Amino acid sequence: MAKELPTRAEDYAQWYVELVKKADLAENSDVRGCMVIKPYGYTLWENMQRALDKMFKDTGHVNAYFPLFVPKSMFEAEEKNAEGFAKECAIVTHYRLKNDPSKPGKLMVDPEAKLEEELVVRPTSEAIIWNTYKKWIQSYRDLPILINQWANVVRWEMRTRLFLRTAEFLWQEGHTAHATRQEAEQEARLMLDVYAEFAERFMAVPVIKGRKSDGERFPGAVDTYCIEALMQDGKALQAGTSHFLGQNFATAFDVQFSTKEGKLDYVWGTSWGVSTRLIGGIIMAHSDDDGLILPPRLAPLHVVIVPIFRSEEELNKITAAIEPVIGDLRKAGLSVKFDNRDTQKPGFKFAEYELKGVPVRIAVGPRDLENGTLEVARRDTKQKQVLKMEGITTAITALLEEIQSNLFARALKFREEHTTRVDSYEEFKRVLDDKGGFVLAHWDGTTETEQRIKDETKATIRCIPLEGGQETGACVYSGKPSAGRVVFARAY
Amino acid sequence: MAKELPTRAEDYAQWYVELVKKADLAENSDVRGCMVIKPYGYTLWENMQRALDKMFKDTGHVNAYFPLFVPKSMFEAEEKNAEGFAKECAIVTHYRLKNDPSKPGKLMVDPEAKLEEELVVRPTSEAIIWNTYKKWIQSYRDLPILINQWANVVRWEMRTRLFLRTAEFLWQEGHTAHATRQEAEQEARLMLDVYAEFAERFMAVPVIKGRKSDGERFPGAVDTYCIEALMQDGKALQAGTSHFLGQNFATAFDVQFSTKEGKLDYVWGTSWGVSTRLIGGIIMAHSDDDGLILPPRLAPLHVVIVPIFRSEEELNKITAAIEPVIGDLRKAGLSVKFDNRDTQKPGFKFAEYELKGVPVRIAVGPRDLENGTLEVARRDTKQKQVLKMEGITTAITALLEEIQSNLFARALKFREEHTTRVDSYEEFKRVLDDKGGFVLAHWDGTTETEQRIKDETKATIRCIPLEGGQETGACVYSGKPSAGRVVFARAY
Repeated sequence: MAKELPTRAEDYAQWYVELVKKADLAENSDVRGCMVIKPYGYTLWENMQRALDKMFKDTGHVNAYFPLFVPKSMFEAEEKNAEGFAKECAIVTHYRLKNDPSKPGKLMVDPEAKLEEELVVRPTSEAIIWNTYKKWIQSYRDLPILINQWANVVRWEMRTRLFLRTAEFLWQEGHTAHATRQEAEQEARLMLDVYAEFAERFMAVPVIKGRKSDGERFPGAVDTYCIEALMQDGKALQAGTSHFLGQNFATAFDVQFSTKEGKLDYVWGTSWGVSTRLIGGIIMAHSDDDGLILPPRLAPLHVVIVPIFRSEEELNKITAAIEPVIGDLRKAGLSVKFDNRDTQKPGFKFAEYELKGVPVRIAVGPRDLENGTLEVARRDTKQKQVLKMEGITTAITALLEEIQSNLFARALKFREEHTTRVDSYEEFKRVLDDKGGFVLAHWDGTTETEQRIKDETKATIRCIPLEGGQETGACVYSGKPSAGRVVFARAY
Repeated sequence: MAKELPTRAEDYAQWYVELVKKADLAENSDVRGCMVIKPYGYTLWENMQRALDKMFKDTGHVNAYFPLFVPKSMFEAEEKNAEGFAKECAIVTHYRLKNDPSKPGKLMVDPEAKLEEELVVRPTSEAIIWNTYKKWIQSYRDLPILINQWANVVRWEMRTRLFLRTAEFLWQEGHTAHATRQEAEQEARLMLDVYAEFAERFMAVPVIKGRKSDGERFPGAVDTYCIEALMQDGKALQAGTSHFLGQNFATAFDVQFSTKEGKLDYVWGTSWGVSTRLIGGIIMAHSDDDGLILPPRLAPLHVVIVPIFRSEEELNKITAAIEPVIGDLRKAGLSVKFDNRDTQKPGFKFAEYELKGVPVRIAVGPRDLENGTLEVARRDTKQKQVLKMEGITTAITALLEEIQSNLFARALKFREEHTTRVDSYEEFKRVLDDKGGFVLAHWDGTTETEQRIKDETKATIRCIPLEGGQETGACVYSGKPSAGRVVFARAY
């Protein structure tokens, strides 16, 4: 293979970063902490956006767009939210450059163009949006508002990693406003379900739905719901969050409405988001030492066809025979590439498409033409089979579905094998170190215990799971009473 | 009507701004110069994006994403480009807020978190992208690169107007890299054709394709091509630009490649963009004193159905009869709304959908049910007709096509009536003042004359048209020889 990767066993973190770069998904830019999302990675994101956007619209949401900048005084209105993001905000202070008199051809910030009030580049948009909702909401008739925004946001992270943690990232953020507490809570849970369905059906990544502990809650929320996924190195990845905001932002921005009964009340809110971080999750959940393995429902390219030829004449024959096949596959909605380059050998191409995670590879040579067959290889298991050219579209479509199911089943099996119930702190630490994964343990419900466990083991409470029967017990750390097991893990 | 607009004759500028707000397209935010694009306006933008994105992909382009921020030293590398945008750049200088010790609960910029190098919020992305292309391009085999980006950009405009000129706006920017001058020039022209086709086929706005004069060229380009549209007040709107960049950015960022012949050469480039400004163009080209008139191919809502009823029983009967019709219309790919509110009278609803520019309105009452008919009104001409319920989908689909064609024909007729050939400066000024529109006049080709005409009349050279026979003559201003007529107008 032209582009060697470290193996996962050797160095998982390095394997991940090299894979992202070598598979042409993204690279670091020369702007601190910001990435360039390359066309192959961006197409994956577009496919994710399309699926999510449809799910949002099917549940009654519409898209809109709010400003990139938040004036400082607006930003600080919801104090907890402001405090939570203050340490990682990019701040615009000036609105003009001018020629630098001391350096011909160079520019400098014009000190005379200082803003009266600094602007925060949005790390999240609750402030600007609730400030706008104030103007839109007078009566219960104006509710609910069910809006989503596709946007870039900036959080000044000190240690960054492609897709998983970058200073600028792309995401969607839903912001809804409701007349009742119950309706807002239902909305937050509904969107959590939407995220879980997206993760499992499209990304082929099983997730645990849960609620965050007080210590891990979104700043400004009353409740944060989340989906948590498990990566192959045994670390958890938060794959989406949905916040029940209570009346916190409505209070901070004075968004009141007259109820059906003619009283004034503050509006109830939710917000929810997923980001380009999910691309990191897809990569780490499925891929292997040879490269990406992408779920067919999101893959930029479903099928690559590699002709095996020794002369131009052979290539011409293959091309003539394969063109109708390509046409049929495309008609079935598949993305197909015919790689007829004569500058690279088939083996090189095979390795390249394995690296890029194309779910199905078809090889076709002169012998196949004689027999009316094709050699079909699936990326997930690397199994090859010889199939009749006739009816190939049906076979490939079915195979892609099978790959999608297999990826999910494999990831689910891995998660089950890496989910451990422990009943002592010793066992807790041993499982974390030896095996990793999700550790289901009793916890006394205090932030103090949570923090101590984190300091001692680097494991955090990923969530208090929504499903799974209540089971009382004793906290593995303090021995105090516990109302149920929570999900611990080391996490990204 | 509930929401009165000024008429166009009374105050065109005010009519425009009020219409944008009252039709729920967009509003000013509390962030200086930045707008909120409301769901109805954003859906229009999504429809424009979908059509453009398909055209870009059909011509071989792929999407990618580059950072929002450009370090100052990178920004200033292409000097003309930097100079052109320096005066309107938002500058990030700090990356953290902290608690303000003098004001409890308030935040201040942390002076210790000053960036070593300031970051420019992108006003356009040539610098960051060519800095990246340097890493991607070594050989002619790496070319062409045909990339588009959908993004937000910031230009600190002092006087803003919704959609037409805002500090932050949404756009797409194509950035391509080529091995030869000819190929890059062809690309720039190809994308101009794509823009013209989009404007005429989707926006129903006829455009003149041309080249900008030296004075109006994009900073850093060798040639700027543009499409120019005419608004109903006789002013021109630049509706899209496509730049042949020559080797300017490749030289500034040292992007060289080895040619087929084994020599080193600088890469040739183009860039091209259209923005949310086009929404302003659609509004101003078609709408009337009662509200928006939207072209069916981009309208967020194609058909609204208003039931005429006096009792719940009547509404129920109408609903039962109309539901299959709605189903059929939706199956045909149309966006349909059934407005069964009992809190508003039909007349109010009619006015509301006229304001919002829904192309087709259907009214249906008990009499219609008896007769198996529907009353169909088209927004563009306000004509009503009674149509059989049977076969209504075919009729509506055809009507929408007819509206689309009619809007284009109407706008084209208006442009023809407001395009005047003049041969003296007196006539030039009289036509501009009395009639407005495009003025075709001879010009001596100098920036000096162009500037004087602008200072004296506020008219600028919109473009040197690509089509239309060469015709020598004498400059209307200087009397010096002219190689052909150019298009003058007052412009947005």
